[in-house]
This record gives sequence, C-alpha cells and structure tokens, in this order.
Amino acid sequence: MKKVFILFMLISLGAELSAQNRVTWIWYPGDFEVWLSNKMQNRRTERGAFFPPFWRMDNHYVLIDFHKVFDVPSEEQVELYVEGQFNVKIDGKGISGYPRTITMPAGKHKLSMKVFCQDRVPAIFVKGKTVVSDSSWLVTYEDKEWIDASGKASDQSGTNWLSAGSWNFDSPSVPPSMFALATAPQSPVKVEKTAGSLLVDFGKETFGFIRLKGLKGNGRVSVYYGESKEEALATETCETLDHLEINAPVKKDSVMNLTKAFRFVNVKYHPDVSIDSVSMLYEYLPVADRGDFRCSDAEINRIYDVSKYTFHLNTREFFIDGIKRDRWIWSGDAYQSYLMNYYLLFDSPSVTRTLLALRGKDPVSSHINTIMDYTFYWFLGISDYYLYTGDKKFIEQFYPRMQSLMEFCLSRRNGDGLMEGLPGDWVFIDWADGLSKQGAVSFEQLLLARSLETMATCSKIVNDQEGATKYEKLASNLKAKIFSTYWNEQKQALVHSLVAGKQTDNVTRYANMFGIFFDYFDEQQKQGVKQHVLLNDKIQKITTPYMRFYELEALCAMGEQKHVLLEMKDYWGGMLKLGATSFWEEYNPSKKGAEHYAMYGRPFGKSLCHAWGASPLYLLGKYYLGVKPLSPGYASYVVEPVLGGLKWMDGKVPTPAGDVKVYCSTKEIRVQGVAGAGVLRIKSKTKPSGDGLEVKPLGNQLYEIGIGQNKAITVRYSAL
Amino acid sequence: MKKVFILFMLISLGAELSAQNRVTWIWYPGDFEVWLSNKMQNRRTERGAFFPPFWRMDNHYVLIDFHKVFDVPSEEQVELYVEGQFNVKIDGKGISGYPRTITMPAGKHKLSMKVFCQDRVPAIFVKGKTVVSDSSWLVTYEDKEWIDASGKASDQSGTNWLSAGSWNFDSPSVPPSMFALATAPQSPVKVEKTAGSLLVDFGKETFGFIRLKGLKGNGRVSVYYGESKEEALATETCETLDHLEINAPVKKDSVMNLTKAFRFVNVKYHPDVSIDSVSMLYEYLPVADRGDFRCSDAEINRIYDVSKYTFHLNTREFFIDGIKRDRWIWSGDAYQSYLMNYYLLFDSPSVTRTLLALRGKDPVSSHINTIMDYTFYWFLGISDYYLYTGDKKFIEQFYPRMQSLMEFCLSRRNGDGLMEGLPGDWVFIDWADGLSKQGAVSFEQLLLARSLETMATCSKIVNDQEGATKYEKLASNLKAKIFSTYWNEQKQALVHSLVAGKQTDNVTRYANMFGIFFDYFDEQQKQGVKQHVLLNDKIQKITTPYMRFYELEALCAMGEQKHVLLEMKDYWGGMLKLGATSFWEEYNPSKKGAEHYAMYGRPFGKSLCHAWGASPLYLLGKYYLGVKPLSPGYASYVVEPVLGGLKWMDGKVPTPAGDVKVYCSTKEIRVQGVAGAGVLRIKSKTKPSGDGLEVKPLGNQLYEIGIGQNKAITVRYSAL
Repeated sequence: MKKVFILFMLISLGAELSAQNRVTWIWYPGDFEVWLSNKMQNRRTERGAFFPPFWRMDNHYVLIDFHKVFDVPSEEQVELYVEGQFNVKIDGKGISGYPRTITMPAGKHKLSMKVFCQDRVPAIFVKGKTVVSDSSWLVTYEDKEWIDASGKASDQSGTNWLSAGSWNFDSPSVPPSMFALATAPQSPVKVEKTAGSLLVDFGKETFGFIRLKGLKGNGRVSVYYGESKEEALATETCETLDHLEINAPVKKDSVMNLTKAFRFVNVKYHPDVSIDSVSMLYEYLPVADRGDFRCSDAEINRIYDVSKYTFHLNTREFFIDGIKRDRWIWSGDAYQSYLMNYYLLFDSPSVTRTLLALRGKDPVSSHINTIMDYTFYWFLGISDYYLYTGDKKFIEQFYPRMQSLMEFCLSRRNGDGLMEGLPGDWVFIDWADGLSKQGAVSFEQLLLARSLETMATCSKIVNDQEGATKYEKLASNLKAKIFSTYWNEQKQALVHSLVAGKQTDNVTRYANMFGIFFDYFDEQQKQGVKQHVLLNDKIQKITTPYMRFYELEALCAMGEQKHVLLEMKDYWGGMLKLGATSFWEEYNPSKKGAEHYAMYGRPFGKSLCHAWGASPLYLLGKYYLGVKPLSPGYASYVVEPVLGGLKWMDGKVPTPAGDVKVYCSTKEIRVQGVAGAGVLRIKSKTKPSGDGLEVKPLGNQLYEIGIGQNKAITVRYSAL
Repeated sequence: MKKVFILFMLISLGAELSAQNRVTWIWYPGDFEVWLSNKMQNRRTERGAFFPPFWRMDNHYVLIDFHKVFDVPSEEQVELYVEGQFNVKIDGKGISGYPRTITMPAGKHKLSMKVFCQDRVPAIFVKGKTVVSDSSWLVTYEDKEWIDASGKASDQSGTNWLSAGSWNFDSPSVPPSMFALATAPQSPVKVEKTAGSLLVDFGKETFGFIRLKGLKGNGRVSVYYGESKEEALATETCETLDHLEINAPVKKDSVMNLTKAFRFVNVKYHPDVSIDSVSMLYEYLPVADRGDFRCSDAEINRIYDVSKYTFHLNTREFFIDGIKRDRWIWSGDAYQSYLMNYYLLFDSPSVTRTLLALRGKDPVSSHINTIMDYTFYWFLGISDYYLYTGDKKFIEQFYPRMQSLMEFCLSRRNGDGLMEGLPGDWVFIDWADGLSKQGAVSFEQLLLARSLETMATCSKIVNDQEGATKYEKLASNLKAKIFSTYWNEQKQALVHSLVAGKQTDNVTRYANMFGIFFDYFDEQQKQGVKQHVLLNDKIQKITTPYMRFYELEALCAMGEQKHVLLEMKDYWGGMLKLGATSFWEEYNPSKKGAEHYAMYGRPFGKSLCHAWGASPLYLLGKYYLGVKPLSPGYASYVVEPVLGGLKWMDGKVPTPAGDVKVYCSTKEIRVQGVAGAGVLRIKSKTKPSGDGLEVKPLGNQLYEIGIGQNKAITVRYSAL
C-alpha cells in the first residue's frame, strides 16, 4: 500500500467563521465524513486479523449536482479540479468533454457541475477571480431535471438542495481523497538488545507507524506492540502485531502499513536478519490547544497534562474511543470528547465530522453503534454543539437525519412508552459487574427525555412548529412518567429499572447522577440523591473513567468541587502512580500489577489510552474555572470560579469569539471577557470590589459582576 | 482507460435452477446490480459531454459478513478469493492475516468471512471440496456481534440474514468487478472516402467500440456517429461524437473508450493525419434465443427478426431503453423488456438484475426514475416475474424493499386517496402532444390498483398475513373508487382525469386499454370500451411503440388478432419501408424524411433503436402462438393458438422447464408440451380430433384438450 503523507495545517475555526468566500474543495455534506470513517474504522486489527465494525457502514452518494449563481463583473477564466467523472454547464448549457478551464461570461450566470465517483466522494474545486467553490454552493443527489418530448424542462421540482460540505482542503492539488493526518519522526528513549530481539521503549504511550531501519537478510521479522512492557513481551497474547517476510540482500528501511498504539515494541527477528534501529512516525491531527489550566497543585497539573495528551492521541480523523484496540467512533465515547473539546481545542469540524460519521445515512436499521444509550448521546451531542457554537446551519442541514433517528427510537418503545432493549439493541450504560440490562432501565428513559428536549429545540430552529409541539409534549410526558415510575421516596432515588412493569429494588448511580446535571430533580430530591446515592458507599462503585466523568460532574454541579478534587487526585492520580502516561479505559484500584491490563477475557484486552479518561479537561474548565455558555455560541455566558481547595488557578476557556481568561486565588479574580454578554458569579465572605465594577449581591454571599464585552476585570474578594 | 474484454458464456437458467452447489462468486443480494448500474448508466454522453441520470444513484454496502455452516466429511484445504479487505473465522475464531488457503477441519463447522470494499462490491469465492461459495451462504451488512467486558458475545440478535447474491462469475480469476460484456469484431459494408473524411456504413444499426486502424500523423480526428446517414453527416447536431488528438509518428490502432450506437460513422481528420480503415468491436450480452416464430407472412417474419435484433441490442448489462442516447434503465421501458424476454430469452437474471438496479436502496426519496407510473411498472414487473418463473426466493429476499416503496406511494395520495403528481413527481404516461398530467389521472390509479394486488400476492408468499389483508383491502377499495370516479356511462369509457375533484371531458386510450388486460371491466364495459375507445379514430392516436404495445395487447386480449396483424404490418412494416434496421422510439407515419429523426427539440434527438419497439416478440408469442402460464412458473399453462389471418405459424415459447412448441395451420395444430399441466384451447368449426386425445367441448365452438406432461400432440381441426 502506497501512503501519501501530507502535512497541512488545520485552522481551528469557530462555527461562525464559515468556509464562505475561501476557495476550497466542496462535496455533499456528510459524505466525506462517512467515506473517511469507513476508511479509518476498517483499520483495526487484532493479532494480525482484520477486525471491522459490527454495525452498518454507510456510503457516500456517488452522483452529485453542484451549482451556484454568480454575478461576474467581467469575463473570467475559471480553473476546474474534480474528483470523478463530470460535466459542466453554464446557464444549463453543457460544455463538451472534461474541461480543466472554462470562461465565465460577465453578468449573472449559473454554473453547474455534476460529478460521478464511486470510490471517492464526488468533489470539486473551482478557482476563478469571483467564481470559486465554497460552502455557499448548493448540492443535491437527485436534481430530478427531466425534459419532455419537446425538450422543455420540468417546471416543478421536489428536490432538496443543501449547502455544500467542506473542511480545510484549500489546495487544488490535495483533494479530499488524499486526506492524511500529519506525521513526525520520533525515536525511542531506551532499547534493550538481545539475540534476535530488540525491546524498544518510546518513553510514553504513543501512536504511529513503526519504522525499521537498515533491514537486511532473509527471514521473518515480527513486531509485537505493547501499551505495557508486559504486553510487548507477551508474544502469544499481545493485542497487535505485524509480521514481515524479509528478503533484502542490501540494507533497506521499512515502514509498517498500519498505525498502531504502543509505548513498547518488541521486535523479534530471524538469525539471518539484521536491523540497525527502530524508530517511528508519530501520527496526529494538527490542531492547537486553546484552553489551558494551571493551579497550585502539581498533581492536578500533571493530571491535566496527561489528560491533554490522552485527548490528543484520541482526537484524529474523528474522536475515537481508544488508540490501541477499537479505533472506532463510539457515540458515547465521542460525546465526552465533544465536551472536552469545548474546553481545550474548540475544534468544531472535529465535532461535526464525528457526529456525521456516527449518524451515517437513512434508513436507520439499528441504534448508533447498535447501542441504545449511544443513540441518545448523539442527540445530546447536538444539543451541546449548538449551545457551545451557536451553529444553526448544521441543524438546518441535518434536521431530517435527527427526525428519522428519533422516529426509530419512538417506534421501539414498549407498551408503557418506555425504551426497553429489543433483539439487536445493546443496552450498554457502563462496564460494571452484574449491571442489569433487563426491562426498562431508568437511565435510558432520562437520555430519551433529554433527546426529545433536543429535538424540540432543533424543531424551533428549523421552524418546524408541529415537530416542536410534538417533541415538547413527548418530553414532558416522559419526564412525568420517569418520576411516577422510578422515583422511590424511601430510597430517595430513581431505581435502576422496571421489570415486567414492577420497580426493581436496585439503585445504581447512573440515572441519579444524570438527573442532577439534567436538572430534572427538585431541590429536595437533589439533596436526597446526593446523600443516598452519590455519597453513599453502599451503592455499587463506578470503575470506568467513562462514568466517573458524569459522577464527578454531578457532584460539581452540586458544589462539591472540594470532594471532586480529592477524587480526581485519588483516581487519576492513582493511575499516574502506577506509571500511566495516558489515562485508561477502566481503573480499579483494588487490582494489582498486570491485572490492570486485562479486560474482555484477554490479558491485554484493556486500552491504556482511552478518550474518556481525559475528563479532567472538562471538569476543570467548566466547574473550577467555571466558564459556561448561557445561550448558544456564548452570546451570553457565566464565569463561576470555584477553587475547590486549590490556592490558585489560572486558565483559559475557548469560545467562538476568543478565549475567556480566568485567574482565581482566594483573594483575587481576574477575568478577560469575550464579545458575548458575560457575568462573573462568585461567593465571597465580603462584598467584592474592583475599579469601576458594579457588584450585584444575589444574596446568600453570592455576587454577580458584569464582565463587559472584550473587557478585562480584576476583582478583590474573600473566598469562603 | 484500460478495458478488460472477457468473454464468458451466460447460461440461461430458469429460476428453479439456483446457483446452489455450483462454486461461484457471491455478494450481498442486489449490490452488484446497483454497482453495475452506476457504472453503466454513467456512460451516457451528449455531444462529448458526460450526461448522468437525474435521479439518485445508490451504492453497495461496503462491509459484508458472509457465513455458512458446513458438514465436512474429512479435513480439506479451501482456497479463498476475495474482493476487498477481509477476515476469516472458523467457528468464530479469527485467523491472522489475509490467508489465501485455509484448512477446514472435519465435522460441523461455521465458516465466516467479513469483507470491506469501498470501490467494488465486497465478494468472495471459496473453493474447497465440500466447502464452496454459493447462494446458500447467508449475508448481512450488520451482524451486531458485540461482546461484553468479559468477552461474552451478545445472546440476542436483531440481524436480518439474506441468502447471498450471485450470477455467473464461476471463475476465481474473474471477480464481479471485472464484468464486461462480450465483443466481436465487425467490418463496414460500405466506405465513402473523400479528402479528410471517411463515411462508413455498417449496413444496419449496431453498437460497440469504433476502431481506427493505421492511424498516423499529427492532428485532430473527429468521429461523428449517426443512426441515420443524415445524422452522421450533421457534424454540428449529431447526438454523439468523439474527438481524438493524434500524435503518431508510426502507424497505430485506436479503439474508442466508450461504446456508441450507430449505423453510419463519419470520420473527419486533419490533413496531416492518415487512417487505413475503420471497423468496430460489436458489444453484446451473450444470451441465446429460446423463443421463435415463423409464419406464412414474410413481412411479419421480417418484423419478428428486426424486433429480435432490436431487443438484443437493448438487452445488455440490464434491459435499457435505447442504445444511442439514454442507455439508462427506465422502469417503464424495462417492464416491456421483461415481457418480451419471457417469449424470447427467458433469461431470469436479466430481469432480476434490472429490477434490483431500478429499485436501489432505501430510503425511497422519489419515484423510480422520478416517474410515478414507472414505480408501478416495477411492481407489475415483479407480478409477472413470479407468474412466469415461480421464483419465490426473489420475493422473500426483497419484500421489504417492495413494502417501503409502496409506503412511499401510499403516503403521496391526495385527500381523495388518489395518486396525483406532487412536486418532483413526473407523471409520464406516454409521449403524446398535449396529454394532460393535471389532477388525478385515471391511468395512474389503475396502475396503483394492480400494484396493490401484487403486494397482496407477495405478502402471502412471505406469510405476512397482516400485509395481505391490508393490501387486498386497499386494492379493492381503490378499484371501486376508480369506477365510481372515472367511469362515464355515456362515453362508455374511463375518463382521463379528475381535476379539482371533477371528471374531465377528456377520454384517452391509456386507462381503458389497461382496464381490458387487467380484466377490470365487466363484459358490457369491455365491449363499450372496444367500440368507443380502442376502435374509435376520434380518440387521440398513439404514436409510440411503447403504448402501441398495450393498445395491441388489449385488442388481442379481446380476440382482435386479425385487426392487430394488420396494424403490425402497417406500423412496424411502415418503419421497415422507411429503411429501419431496428425499431424506433416513436413513429408517426405522417412525418417525412429526416423529420422522423427529430425529438426533444433536437434534429436527431430520437432513438432509432428502442427496446419498446420490439413488442411483436411478445404479442406473437402470447396472443398468436398463444402460450401463457396459468399458475406461477408454468406449473399449469394454456396454449391458445390464434392465426389472426395467417395461413400457418410455427414457433417456440420458453418456460422454466423447457420450450413449448406450437405449429398451427388452419387444419392442424401440433403442440410439444413441457413438465407443467398444459391445456390446448382452440376454436373449431368441427370437433377437433387426434390420436388418443380427450377433447372437451367448452361450448361456443371452443374446445379444450389436455397436453400431458412433456407430451407432443397433433390435433386436426377446422379453423373458424
């Protein structure tokens, strides 16, 4: 396989900065994402065997019509670059052949191109002075432009035109099909050489192509990858490997075909083979950090840094789950990456690429990734995307795909109107021993309720009043039903499930912690849940960083930052103490040694670099620095710094209009605001003060101070 | 573009002879058809410009799971050939890498393969002693085989498994992606050479790749194609052409990239270029004729032969409309090809390939080819396919695609429950001047009623009782509505349409002639329609062979074979008298000279070789030789020979179990029957007789004689 390594910079763009007027490759929206996800998700191997996903992979539309009407000041030459077989029409009149340059006459003219491409996504790059391809072009997969026997075109059309999709393919010579992540050479920090073997340590978890330099001789070379040293040495049970048959009379270099995740590499070779050295090409998505967090606690700083590295390793063509094993796009995992992204990268294209790849195409024949909860996280992802970015266009373009997915869900409710697993539905929730998936699980109903609320919001954005009414009613009915069905007054909790119409005795954390930050509980219920569930050691503990994310979020949402800081130090700090250089798929402090690496019945089944391990990025930005949008796209926002036991913290949170900077000690807060309407809310023993500030007491030692657009403020206060 | 010419014989198989136990390439059913139709339908050009279809082109599933459980008598070596990236599992256990040979252990074992392929259809060819790939393998595009944290696989599955698709790819070295039609060299019958030009006549309409031999020199060569001499000479307005830039210091041959339709080729070349000769590669689907028809009338024999040639030219990767211009798969055109096929080729794969390509995939976003009537013809095509072949498997596999297409139709009915064109719906009916498409056209309601009846039949085949009840009720309600709404007692006809809820005054032939052979009229209505519509010159005449097909069928169904024979001689004979070597898209005897070639506002817009021109194949087989299935797959059938003015006729009609042979003169009838229960029905002045025959008088000079399975009978009678 020939590989094309192309280095091109990704510019982090807020959603408000559209690709309009920047000449770029365009395609049918969502299609590049589907195509690229097929390519990426079919790169998984398990011990050398190809391991593809078990859900439906969709496909791009192979025949696309592109057009735009231009007002051309004076005749101009226009260059055309196309992926596929194409035609060009000016004002509906075809031009013979496959022209590379056309002349656009002055005046108002419609330029149309129609492209067929089976193996890649039909795409065009049009470059004139005023006539350029950008996301303002309209596209469809069925133009329905028939003519009658006299040659007259049809006068009514039922065709849906969408705005073209685009990303950052701004060079005519790098079409979308040539997409490749960036690479950089890296060397090991330590090599142990024995007869016929090299054990190489790259010093930390990493990802890329192994390069064998100076290969010579005849015989087999095997490369065993390990996230741990134990795994690399376990040639019979390590998860990934490569075998090469060498026949090299003179020295040559060899780069592996497929990327792998590893810290250690164990290269074993035939006595007739020699190898000079082992190095790697680190592969990554070049996207810059915008968020930041430093504080008085060195361990937390280290947790933040390792979270960042973990997150970057899993932020690739898409937000993936983990780099060693699946390397697939999992909606539940991706949902957490979206949230972390808003506090570190604010890279909207990574969010929309992932959402579109997950959704694929109609018809809906299964839940996203086959998992019921993962379908709902997809809706929640859209809800957050809109809140953080304010991007209405995305919702306008993909509302029909939201509708059909929701219809699929609604059609699978049981007789009580509740979601219950049907054959083919995976009720996942979490990796937890003995967790019951029987009957109608309360957790799933909460997610459906939130998804219905998201649909109602989006219906209004696209002016679907009927839809808005319908989804609002469904949401409020379901919320009422959740409380009448699952709330147990004695237990002060939502019970886990309803089996055969009866409440089970089981209380788990899941529905209860989501109920907190969904704000579905009244104050009394909240306190009940906090005491009886969240802070109750008798309730089954959570061992995945995945659900720790929500557990700690729920506690933060109730002002328990002090407690959460200790939990973070204990849990993430615990992994660091075990030598983690990235955060894991699952962590159970009670395990010992290599026990930590086992999962799925395999000794090295566990992923030691899982996106969901990076949640401190989100928690520290949202609940410590305390920066949150109040209305879509940070048109209004709040800054509520909470030290949670830290002496000071200093950081940045990205928004569409720049970064909000927050410094907070026990005595002083400095905030640099952005274009939106920001307010600072702080608790203080005494009334806060500062030059020219209007301080509004909200009672109960809480104060609110307007930040002012793009203004910096300094506030003196006295932390509680 | 490099072309692979592969000659491989297609074996005409009845549906009952499945591909089981014959080792062959297999894929997800319907996917090769979609892939091949994309390839074929995107070969249309108009004056050198690419001219793709205006409806949605679908795509194959890119990731497919194949499996079968085998009982292996003793360990065997199995060769694997795959299109795509794949894995192999025996009893769920993966084998490392991409093995070309595996060892299947003795005993009962499940062999699974999973294949990803983006540009071609995922396909496998498995060749062992007992372990072979054939259509008995099961396939899916979503296996939903997840595992839990302990490694346990999901215990319930919602996955639909279908039987694998296959055709005639029986060699491991010719995978489906290498499909190519057969070719044979052909030479012109006449060449007129002038300075810088060669006008080449191939003697009759043909199709293929033009080959220029002994090209030398520098400069442009242009090839102008003509179905008529006028078109080839009209370099500014001919429909298809090729331009080549030659730079050949020594002589070379050049074959055009794309096939074209032509009889004449006008090659114009630069003074600095020389060409030795022009020839062609005729391209065709190698499929043998099984039906035949000879009779006492030489003109009818010629019409039959030219129909046969016309039909062969349009029977290619799929049944297409015409070879010059569209070369697309149009459901209305294809529907007639299915029917002709049952009387000439009985090539079921050509029918199912075409049906599957037309249907494509869900979701349904428009009518088939965007045309309302063409959606209904698709259902009618399935109804006939089942009747002629008895192939239940096809219906079992694709019933869900029938359901979703029907739901699309039902969702588009107007307030009165009638089909009326919505934006994006093309109500075609026929090419006819001034034909109204406004309101709810009666013709469309008849087609919907017949489609609903088809759905009811298919529901029963797949044991969907609920569906059967629903569709039966919808069909009978609609039929009642058709008569209460459109039947005009005074006009003795169904009127053309209902506009704003009111009957129009207009009577056209369409609904009335379909009503005859759908058997929707009572005897009195039939006679009324015959006199007031079919034989009434005041009703707008039909000028397309397309609708002549049904008009003549309706007359035949009412015993008007004598009249129809004269019409055939007049209409098809009329084209022959104008020099036609294949039958046309449209024929209007009142036009003169090159006027005949114009259509769609273009001087050579008309196709002179259109499949729908070949209907005498069907009419002569079904209504003169009179062979018709009475139950699916010719389990029972009738032979009702009608001379219609001929002195004698002699022919064959193919069935799944062999050919029914019929000779009929005014005095003697000889029939060679097949495996089904056949009866001969004849009208005779005197009681027919023959050795060992039991003759049953049915009254009114009609007699019935049992044919006997695979028996030949000779009957003496006296024609009326």
